[in-house]
Amino acid sequence: MGKISPFAPKRLAELPPIEGVRIATAAAGIRYPGRTDLLFALLDPGTSVAGVLTKSKTASAPVDWCRQHLGHGMARALVVNSGNANAFTGRRGREAVERTVEAAARAADCLEADVYVASTGVIGEPLDTTKFTGLLGDLAREAKPNAFEQAARAIMTTDTYPKLATRKSEIDGVEVTINGIAKGAGMIAPDMATTLAFIFTDATIEPVALRGCLDPGLEQSFNAITIDSDTSTSDTLLVFATGAAASCGAPRIAVAEDPRATAFRLALAQVMRELALQVVKDGEGLTKFVTVRVTGAESDEAARRIAQSIANSPLVKTAIAGEDPNWGRIVAAVGKAGEAANRDRMAIWLGDILVATEGEVAAAYREAQGAAYMKNAEISIRADVGIGRGTATVFTCDLTKDYIAINADYRS
Amino acid sequence: MGKISPFAPKRLAELPPIEGVRIATAAAGIRYPGRTDLLFALLDPGTSVAGVLTKSKTASAPVDWCRQHLGHGMARALVVNSGNANAFTGRRGREAVERTVEAAARAADCLEADVYVASTGVIGEPLDTTKFTGLLGDLAREAKPNAFEQAARAIMTTDTYPKLATRKSEIDGVEVTINGIAKGAGMIAPDMATTLAFIFTDATIEPVALRGCLDPGLEQSFNAITIDSDTSTSDTLLVFATGAAASCGAPRIAVAEDPRATAFRLALAQVMRELALQVVKDGEGLTKFVTVRVTGAESDEAARRIAQSIANSPLVKTAIAGEDPNWGRIVAAVGKAGEAANRDRMAIWLGDILVATEGEVAAAYREAQGAAYMKNAEISIRADVGIGRGTATVFTCDLTKDYIAINADYRS
Repeated sequence: MGKISPFAPKRLAELPPIEGVRIATAAAGIRYPGRTDLLFALLDPGTSVAGVLTKSKTASAPVDWCRQHLGHGMARALVVNSGNANAFTGRRGREAVERTVEAAARAADCLEADVYVASTGVIGEPLDTTKFTGLLGDLAREAKPNAFEQAARAIMTTDTYPKLATRKSEIDGVEVTINGIAKGAGMIAPDMATTLAFIFTDATIEPVALRGCLDPGLEQSFNAITIDSDTSTSDTLLVFATGAAASCGAPRIAVAEDPRATAFRLALAQVMRELALQVVKDGEGLTKFVTVRVTGAESDEAARRIAQSIANSPLVKTAIAGEDPNWGRIVAAVGKAGEAANRDRMAIWLGDILVATEGEVAAAYREAQGAAYMKNAEISIRADVGIGRGTATVFTCDLTKDYIAINADYRS
Repeated sequence: MGKISPFAPKRLAELPPIEGVRIATAAAGIRYPGRTDLLFALLDPGTSVAGVLTKSKTASAPVDWCRQHLGHGMARALVVNSGNANAFTGRRGREAVERTVEAAARAADCLEADVYVASTGVIGEPLDTTKFTGLLGDLAREAKPNAFEQAARAIMTTDTYPKLATRKSEIDGVEVTINGIAKGAGMIAPDMATTLAFIFTDATIEPVALRGCLDPGLEQSFNAITIDSDTSTSDTLLVFATGAAASCGAPRIAVAEDPRATAFRLALAQVMRELALQVVKDGEGLTKFVTVRVTGAESDEAARRIAQSIANSPLVKTAIAGEDPNWGRIVAAVGKAGEAANRDRMAIWLGDILVATEGEVAAAYREAQGAAYMKNAEISIRADVGIGRGTATVFTCDLTKDYIAINADYRS
């Protein structure tokens, strides 16, 4: 898939084992030759699960399955394949999920309702489950606690590096661990995730409380990133809590607001943020990582829409690719967002450089300053729209010829 | 600006003179060396005007001026410059418009309120009117009736060919002529025009009726095109009716619904459609012209939103650039539009080829058929979303490396 992202981490995070989680991967030959494309995670009895799924009206068959089963909140196994999204595959798609779940339940010795599934890759092609259902029994036997990096590699599509994050936290003084993996690359936009992300923890926390712990971090992580404005059919974020920390005395958390879980919520949000930023920093063909901050909007929601309008504008993104401080395109992107903006009170910054204020170019601004700033690998844009107190931050990347090359040739 | 669009007309339309309209152009050196960048059109006393302007919240100073003055409906002069949009230029922008209008009114011997202005080009840079206000007197003297092609050339930015369209029609049996010119290329998206277009006719028609005659054609023309989803700060469509046909006995039309104006309304819609399609066919860097038709939506408006979601999807547009029949991306674009769609009843066609039906790939479809179809220069996509009777058609183009090259380098 071409060049490695310039923002690939120098060293991958090393994720410690989490008691109650065992992982195995395989090269099932679903689409990609010579690499792993199947992840099987086994979870000890008593594991809680919570999640968020794509809002797409054409969601994939695995998303349908997760939506149906998340309600009861317990999990024993997760099966993820890359190379084929099992989306828009009709009756055959549902049957493929059923066969996968059946084989996984047998291999994990659990109920089918406790199996979660996710698929990522090409849309519209039937998923041939015979390539991997027969492998799950062996994988269950060989699954290991310390295989998170392998797991992150197996779920990659056009990703150029695996996404991994980990944090230690505590609940009522008892140490807990949170590990997360994700995949991204293209078709990345809010709402929700537009990626696959799986988070594992040994915390002891009931499903409803686990769901509640997700929310505060979501807006600052997976809902704050966009690569190409294309929401996926497959977005899935699942968090599994094995509860193994109970053996060290961790109390069971029944409501998200429990003050004993404050540090845990924060650590979970950090893991989500770190994964989400890694997803943006591996945006297809990117050369720049871009932070868009909008202030002075009518509301936070209005600020978010304006920030996304800037972050998704092909003209803004190509200007950044060309290292052109073409701030007029930022103005136009604010204008098209449809939210209130006071043109004659607006201000624009590139990094710390005040470029425009009171609706026109700033007296002290010189093009050479902007041009020098745009040579940075990490670009920060701020727009104050002069209306109210709403603020939002969105993370994105530039739009390059390599994005086109990758996506014009993805299936060939 | 590189390659000529593959869809450039073999021969430009030849626009006949229109009584009451005289045109002159000049190379004022506003930005581009060695080409014209200033259009001055003079209109006989009694000319009606109607128009539609950008909905951008950061509209340009010339758009502000037109919005203020369109109400009184009379026009004597039009000044258009390319190279600088006079947008986000604050007080200096307003003053630049005032100086332009003042000079034009003097040259055309008319009221300032009867002068219309439009600017297109870079946003955020002050417009130096001293480059052209001194030229308007001479231009008024040398203006000629048959200079529409020159006019279309003077308003180009990254356009690779001038956009021209003409129709003969009749009002109550008296022949009338409609000539239109437009510019496009980038930052093209609904709502409204996202381009400059000026239409001239010798019909005798009052301002309110003229405005009424615009509407039916708008949804099928300038509101049905998108190149990059970026709405401009400068979109302006103005129609001028000199009324010169009265001397041949044409009646004065006071209401748009007047049955004597039926043919005229149709011809006006045709001119607008022809101009709008020429704008798409000169989309920056395009190699394919794409028609997106959505049927079976909850309403026409819902269909329009879904069609735009498909037409603006970078992943759909890059797949088309790569001649990849990646219809799964069409499904994903339907899904992210936010409008009702029945995934399991959806159907997708590429041209006449039924690719997917009842929510999965069609039994008879073979990838080779789709791949062969994608080699065409003109691509037609249809999606039936299986809900209701709403339909819409949107015109767009593919997204290529040349789009990136043009826009990453636009100002350098």
